[in-house]
Amino acid sequence: MADEGCACFFMSGIGGVVVSRGFGYKLNAMSQKINQLGITCPRGFRAAGGAFGIKVAGKPDMTLIVADVPCNAAGLFTTNRMTSAPVLIDQRHLKVSKGKAQAVIVNAGNANASTGKPGERDAIAMCKRVAEHLQMEPSQVLVSSTGVIGRALPMDKIMRGIDTLVTQLGTGENADAAAARGIMTTDLVPKSAGVTLKLGGKTVTLAGIAKGSGMIAPNLATMLVYVTSDVAITTGILQKALKSATRASFNRISVDQHTSPSDTLITLASGLAGNPVIRTVDASYAKFTAALTALCQNLAYQIVKDGEGATKVFRVQITGARDEIQADRVGRAVVNSPLVKCAVHGADPNWGRITTAAGYAGVNVIAEKMSLFIGPKKQVCVFRKGQPTTVGKAPDATLKALMKEKEILFTLDLGMGKARVEWLGCDLSREYIAINADYTT
Amino acid sequence: MADEGCACFFMSGIGGVVVSRGFGYKLNAMSQKINQLGITCPRGFRAAGGAFGIKVAGKPDMTLIVADVPCNAAGLFTTNRMTSAPVLIDQRHLKVSKGKAQAVIVNAGNANASTGKPGERDAIAMCKRVAEHLQMEPSQVLVSSTGVIGRALPMDKIMRGIDTLVTQLGTGENADAAAARGIMTTDLVPKSAGVTLKLGGKTVTLAGIAKGSGMIAPNLATMLVYVTSDVAITTGILQKALKSATRASFNRISVDQHTSPSDTLITLASGLAGNPVIRTVDASYAKFTAALTALCQNLAYQIVKDGEGATKVFRVQITGARDEIQADRVGRAVVNSPLVKCAVHGADPNWGRITTAAGYAGVNVIAEKMSLFIGPKKQVCVFRKGQPTTVGKAPDATLKALMKEKEILFTLDLGMGKARVEWLGCDLSREYIAINADYTT
Repeated sequence: MADEGCACFFMSGIGGVVVSRGFGYKLNAMSQKINQLGITCPRGFRAAGGAFGIKVAGKPDMTLIVADVPCNAAGLFTTNRMTSAPVLIDQRHLKVSKGKAQAVIVNAGNANASTGKPGERDAIAMCKRVAEHLQMEPSQVLVSSTGVIGRALPMDKIMRGIDTLVTQLGTGENADAAAARGIMTTDLVPKSAGVTLKLGGKTVTLAGIAKGSGMIAPNLATMLVYVTSDVAITTGILQKALKSATRASFNRISVDQHTSPSDTLITLASGLAGNPVIRTVDASYAKFTAALTALCQNLAYQIVKDGEGATKVFRVQITGARDEIQADRVGRAVVNSPLVKCAVHGADPNWGRITTAAGYAGVNVIAEKMSLFIGPKKQVCVFRKGQPTTVGKAPDATLKALMKEKEILFTLDLGMGKARVEWLGCDLSREYIAINADYTT
Repeated sequence: MADEGCACFFMSGIGGVVVSRGFGYKLNAMSQKINQLGITCPRGFRAAGGAFGIKVAGKPDMTLIVADVPCNAAGLFTTNRMTSAPVLIDQRHLKVSKGKAQAVIVNAGNANASTGKPGERDAIAMCKRVAEHLQMEPSQVLVSSTGVIGRALPMDKIMRGIDTLVTQLGTGENADAAAARGIMTTDLVPKSAGVTLKLGGKTVTLAGIAKGSGMIAPNLATMLVYVTSDVAITTGILQKALKSATRASFNRISVDQHTSPSDTLITLASGLAGNPVIRTVDASYAKFTAALTALCQNLAYQIVKDGEGATKVFRVQITGARDEIQADRVGRAVVNSPLVKCAVHGADPNWGRITTAAGYAGVNVIAEKMSLFIGPKKQVCVFRKGQPTTVGKAPDATLKALMKEKEILFTLDLGMGKARVEWLGCDLSREYIAINADYTT
């Protein structure tokens, strides 16, 4: 069911790739075995995607995901007050259907946001058309739109798209790829991942597709994520798992409170795996949530890596924090700093930008307790308990080489406790400006 | 005296050019008559500035301002927890001297921040050297440093600089220009302004110099402002006036909570104008504060206009707000949005970025009550009470032309009350990335 009061999701930003506690994963080798399973791999799902002229002619711009049976559904939506019409309708549908959903229709190229009542009517019309074709209740259809804000949807093209997509629904690699491509806007590559686990002797499969949120750091760049699974789980417990997974993934990539009117994360569970239904917070719940978290972390990593104009990814591990809140705020301040992003872009070891970003994070930090390391395994210490280690020394060749890597790790130890979190960000490049200066023109 | 608990200054960001209530000024014609009076125009001040090899050879990098008599001093400093050594020393000196100061020594090229106890010793040494030369108490000398973080000051060059500057102190255009240039870092032009007013039949003069804070939006780009005046005023009332002026100026340019470890705003009042001493919040206080506000607004405007890589300035007027807090938060969200900044840069009338930035400002706004206008006198309405006016229409030629102007005005009416504020921002350009990707290398 929809969770309108979800403070963690999007209040603290979108994304992120992190294990709150475990922390054992590596950027390129998640602890969970993530594979290339597509969105139709879990039992009971079909999908289709195609190009219908909403974006530039020939570019994929619509995706339809359909389940064979009504699914238990969980959703997290933007906290932006200028909520887009599709998000309003999804929240209403999930309420009316008591957390059941059987189809998701998505278009790219137009966000149907800031479009008033006519926009809501268009979003409803999309759900109705899908429902008519597939003989289900309109309230069991969810809808997303992403793209330019403040323009009416081209409903003739959208309706033609739906009429075509329902005839193309299928499973397998082609269907998976088409679905992943149909939700893209400025993304350079489609994003998908899957994971399997054993529950009560049965194989449970999860798979997801994501649409990147541009540069992530800026607002309004919509993030859309759809996860299908054949797990048997109650709606309430699924929502709980989704919130937990999101906190450790999409909520810890560079965003701050910048949110789009359309951000949407939907999970559908068909129950066809045949595992004993997860009804409470038990060992099965923990195992499922770990898998969902790994999946979300992988998708979040893909989103950051494909950030608008991004050429490099950097991780910020905050250690020695008093508590997770303090660690989280400091990590967010560092990852969101345009100056840190620029330094990463230029391979400039201007580490003072990191320590001072911690200084304005809005939580108490103490210079004399703080240390900063660059590189894996705390390879180079540049700042130890309030003192730079670099004074009077020649620039460190190791440090320079580390800053030139495509993936950089900063470890900032606050020296105040034992909490630790990790945030993920990407650099800020000239290309980002180029993409965003001329978006609608 | 120093005000360590100043929540408004820098908590809400640095800069900004706004009249909270009056709102009558125009960008290029402040309501107060601002002129080119330099820092030594108020009675009782001398200054000097020069190049001492701290930055690239030949570039001005030090400034000394000296008063003939002990002045009543007011200061506002960064709220960044990684406070630089000079800021710590200034706060200590203003406390020890009970709000009296007679000299300010500034260097550019090195921030003396994140430098630990040795950094504090260097800052103290700078004050002592000035005090020895000019035969005053070291606690009556204030110090600022701006530039790279985490490196020890080149104290031999600094001391040589002080020894030279004390011999060059003077008044008049050359001294004024040298002082304005000696505090610059990435600024392209020196920034100064002055204003006069009559108080009790006497002419009171105020003059200020400022060093820009880079792109303003990012953190760490230090803002330094020094204002001299010959007004007779008590220290406590001067501090009150400075806070009021700052709230309506430096606190409403694009920054958010991004602060540098070094941000400093110091005002010295010599009292030599001979006006009846301002001791309380009366008509004279109001007149003086209005002049100080206009001066700060003018300097803030100069800072934004010279933002790193900035090619355009935009104003965001928030009207119809429930209260000033709501208006302020919405204004800040819009002005800080990288996507709005990019749209301004590219003359892209992608106004949905403005309405949705309002949506994530963290205050309640209602789409159905909101309207957005572009251009002077609300020339073009693009969004009226929740509905775009542009649906189904050809792109508006007037709108396109307005977006191409060097200075753009957005008026966002929240339709919820009568409060109004104005924020000032600049665009985000490729040049900004170039400047900040290679700062220390």
